[in-house]
Amino acid sequence: MAQKPSIPKGTRDFSPAEVAKRNYIIQNIKKHFETFGFMPIETPSFENSDTLMGKYGEEGDRLIFKILNSGEFLDKFNSLIIQTIKSAVIYHHSAVVYLNENEASISDLEQYKSQFFNDFKDHLKSDKEIKNLGSKISLDDLVSDIWNFLIQHTVQTDELQDSFIEKNEDDLDEYIFQIFGSFYYDLEYKYLTEYISEKALRYDLTVPFARYVVMHQNEIDFPFKRYQIQPVWRADRPQKGRFREFYQCDADVVGANSLLQEAEFVQLYDAVFTDLGLKGTTIKINNRKILSGIAEVIGAKHLLVDFTVALDKLDKIGEEKVKAEMMEKGISENAIAKAQPLFEMTGSASEQLEQLKTLLANSEVGMLGVAELEEIISTVGMIGLQSAQLQLDVTLARGLNYYTGAIFEVAAPDGVSMGSIGGGGRYDNLTSIFNGPDISGVGISFGLDRIYLVLEELGLFPDSLDTSLDVLCLNFGKQEGLASLKLVSSLRQLGLRADLYPMDAKMQKQFKYADKRGVPYVVLLGEQELAEGKFVAKNMKTGDQKAYGLDAFAQFAEAVKSDF
Amino acid sequence: MAQKPSIPKGTRDFSPAEVAKRNYIIQNIKKHFETFGFMPIETPSFENSDTLMGKYGEEGDRLIFKILNSGEFLDKFNSLIIQTIKSAVIYHHSAVVYLNENEASISDLEQYKSQFFNDFKDHLKSDKEIKNLGSKISLDDLVSDIWNFLIQHTVQTDELQDSFIEKNEDDLDEYIFQIFGSFYYDLEYKYLTEYISEKALRYDLTVPFARYVVMHQNEIDFPFKRYQIQPVWRADRPQKGRFREFYQCDADVVGANSLLQEAEFVQLYDAVFTDLGLKGTTIKINNRKILSGIAEVIGAKHLLVDFTVALDKLDKIGEEKVKAEMMEKGISENAIAKAQPLFEMTGSASEQLEQLKTLLANSEVGMLGVAELEEIISTVGMIGLQSAQLQLDVTLARGLNYYTGAIFEVAAPDGVSMGSIGGGGRYDNLTSIFNGPDISGVGISFGLDRIYLVLEELGLFPDSLDTSLDVLCLNFGKQEGLASLKLVSSLRQLGLRADLYPMDAKMQKQFKYADKRGVPYVVLLGEQELAEGKFVAKNMKTGDQKAYGLDAFAQFAEAVKSDF
Repeated sequence: MAQKPSIPKGTRDFSPAEVAKRNYIIQNIKKHFETFGFMPIETPSFENSDTLMGKYGEEGDRLIFKILNSGEFLDKFNSLIIQTIKSAVIYHHSAVVYLNENEASISDLEQYKSQFFNDFKDHLKSDKEIKNLGSKISLDDLVSDIWNFLIQHTVQTDELQDSFIEKNEDDLDEYIFQIFGSFYYDLEYKYLTEYISEKALRYDLTVPFARYVVMHQNEIDFPFKRYQIQPVWRADRPQKGRFREFYQCDADVVGANSLLQEAEFVQLYDAVFTDLGLKGTTIKINNRKILSGIAEVIGAKHLLVDFTVALDKLDKIGEEKVKAEMMEKGISENAIAKAQPLFEMTGSASEQLEQLKTLLANSEVGMLGVAELEEIISTVGMIGLQSAQLQLDVTLARGLNYYTGAIFEVAAPDGVSMGSIGGGGRYDNLTSIFNGPDISGVGISFGLDRIYLVLEELGLFPDSLDTSLDVLCLNFGKQEGLASLKLVSSLRQLGLRADLYPMDAKMQKQFKYADKRGVPYVVLLGEQELAEGKFVAKNMKTGDQKAYGLDAFAQFAEAVKSDF
Repeated sequence: MAQKPSIPKGTRDFSPAEVAKRNYIIQNIKKHFETFGFMPIETPSFENSDTLMGKYGEEGDRLIFKILNSGEFLDKFNSLIIQTIKSAVIYHHSAVVYLNENEASISDLEQYKSQFFNDFKDHLKSDKEIKNLGSKISLDDLVSDIWNFLIQHTVQTDELQDSFIEKNEDDLDEYIFQIFGSFYYDLEYKYLTEYISEKALRYDLTVPFARYVVMHQNEIDFPFKRYQIQPVWRADRPQKGRFREFYQCDADVVGANSLLQEAEFVQLYDAVFTDLGLKGTTIKINNRKILSGIAEVIGAKHLLVDFTVALDKLDKIGEEKVKAEMMEKGISENAIAKAQPLFEMTGSASEQLEQLKTLLANSEVGMLGVAELEEIISTVGMIGLQSAQLQLDVTLARGLNYYTGAIFEVAAPDGVSMGSIGGGGRYDNLTSIFNGPDISGVGISFGLDRIYLVLEELGLFPDSLDTSLDVLCLNFGKQEGLASLKLVSSLRQLGLRADLYPMDAKMQKQFKYADKRGVPYVVLLGEQELAEGKFVAKNMKTGDQKAYGLDAFAQFAEAVKSDF
């Protein structure tokens, strides 16, 4: 291995300083998740492919990292195809013999297909070797493909079968391969991906959570408030701020319909961001039902998705372009004109709600959305927020196909250019994708990487994170080193992060190391100190030195802790 | 999706109660890693395949989970092979023309191979499309394979080339496939695995750490004490206690040769297990140099690995069978007789060291091992251990090919049947596998899953882990609910884990929920309490009830906290 080692694109190493900062954010989020009554669960990093595939749309399926089955899959796959072809030929041949005996022509085979074909299928399914080899793919489909090929190409299976007898195993494989040529190759391409991979890395935390709820529904006490902080993986093109491995921090409640939940999530955002010192965040809120109502009253109900996808871009591309996109998608000029109030919404949340009531007066679903929003906003208003502001934003769409009620998104304080640092909403049918009970859920997510960048930009990480060691004992040689180790051991037992420089190096080198690790206290325990039964502690910030008796380590520990 | 959802074999979901217990262990280990001056790093879940492959032996390579490249790899792979064959045919044809013009026969082609073949290779490598398609495999090898096939099979490339011109793209692919038949298929099998996977899931934390140290050597201040607690994945056959996804908890020092490190790791084990309440663990210690010395003095130096692999089984299979295995491996009866003292080692560590000094008197490396062990044991003895005992075990081998000095292994307290719950040692050349500087390292690992099982068996998890909520406010309806939410919000801001039951359900149901979550305090804030401006707190253990004014929440919070 001659090349310089590297890591896959879109992934990251985290240095101690970075881990400290990331953990600071994670611990903060975790603490508030817990004070809000959420409980942690963890799910495996990879799930069965069919748990994930088809849950994120076509684009999502493409971005799921698939894991190769272990073992010599290509050989096994090959054997499976060969075995299945062999059996098909034998069955086909007996079908032909039967037809001849009954004076029917080979072109009548189609009529008899079900009889022979089903016998053949049953035979294959009871064949232990084939069952074993083929457990990962749809054997039914494979068998049908082969059978149809034999019939459609009027393959002379009598000749084939005769030659099967003459040839040894290896020659036979080769022979079959030559006879079936490109058809063989088609089969391979059709079934190989399915055959070689049956597990995939988690793409988000929501689908695994839904799977968890369905699998464990009998052990769970509903309403179930769960949080989950784990990495997810996406085979997306890496970009600035977009990674192939990143953490999601999710909290969800399932089994509770009350709108109190929505109010609590607004408070939860406020609690976390306030605690992180990130004041002035904006929690945007909307409701899927309002979007449905608008589409309804302007007569574009059938174009709801196109309408909201366009509307969602108002921030980025402006009113004119949004309207142009809507027209392009087939929404009439008249409909767009009716939606004009949306583009002119102003004032406080309650003023906007009044405007919406006028606009949506004739839409039942729309008025329901307004009522829900009104209740959430009034509940939050009653309890109050510490540092965030709640803002109604009727253009907020976010994962529309997914959410059925409230929609949330959090924007960083003004002046920080960053996409949303959190988002979520209410969904009604999450567990039904796994045939689970139809449980309503609502949840939010924190964007760890973006929050990190915002705190970094605003200088909000506490200085104490730079310190990974409270006390460093310098190493003056063997005897002194042993005494120092004993002192260090005592300090550690009192909870201090303490260390002895591991070797007897030059003082300058040892001080430089102390400096780089940002150690606030350096302890000197040299020959003289040892003889006098004491040690000297140097405060690296002030330069002050103080001597302590070797037994007075607890007193020193108190002094160090008082600086925290 | 009709089937009941499941998770891949060898993986696990963790419920809130399990996560709480796992985190209890992890936080404990982490705390002591930090008081011992270790700093956290994190590395990506997947690495480039060539970072991992070949580092764990043949068996290890097989157990590494490979990740499928994203995108339509089969189509691309197919295009690559077709394109390369086409180019080869064209070049081969011009070679034949050249030979004809120069009145040489086609059998002389071998002589001219380098001329035409190298031209051909250069052409291919400058072909952007092929370069792009083939970036993941060794194009040189592929091209050689095709060229050799053309020559060895005296393929009529002139005819082929003519037919290339007549056919359209699709027909041509099919035609090429038919002509090359099984050769095409051989190519596919030879190059496909390499082509479809270039990333693999982390198999342990040590190799990624070595890669990290080499990649970041200019940013790291040595000696570097790092810890890392992350999951690893192995495609091992799942068994009781053996999983395909599990956490490793590693601490290593690199760049420090002093034996003080070894002594510190013994203390670290002692600190963690003492803190977990797991008293009476045995920290076994040995030294690779002693094993080398023994093999040397008994004249079986060349059979060191076989000798120690057999010796390592003494605990499990007993003296007779160990000796039988040694003989089977070619170690002479005479040599085994010389090793007899090993089987009869008794007494304290220092007594055993004396016996070893006699046995190893003529082995330089062996005596070095004894001296190292002596120093470590005496250092540990001087500082003392809290609850563990240090035990010399000359039969301990553990990852012999890897360790070069001290070897550690921790056994659970007597009476608990469980394999080792931790292990480690010193290695000298870790980073050299990545052409890094030759840095000595020493490290240990904690076995999270096994520690979990031991704590569970001995009932050592604190009861407090069962509580995931400190206060549950019952829900008496809309008005009371709002007042409760305000109270809950105040309690949360004081750091309590508090919640309002999310809906106005039957009291019995709400109390049952409180019970299941093990909530110590339930708050009642019904119509009457609300009218009187107070709430009632019920201690669920004692049944005592106490009323507080709505503004006196801080007083209540203190009462709750005093129970912690």
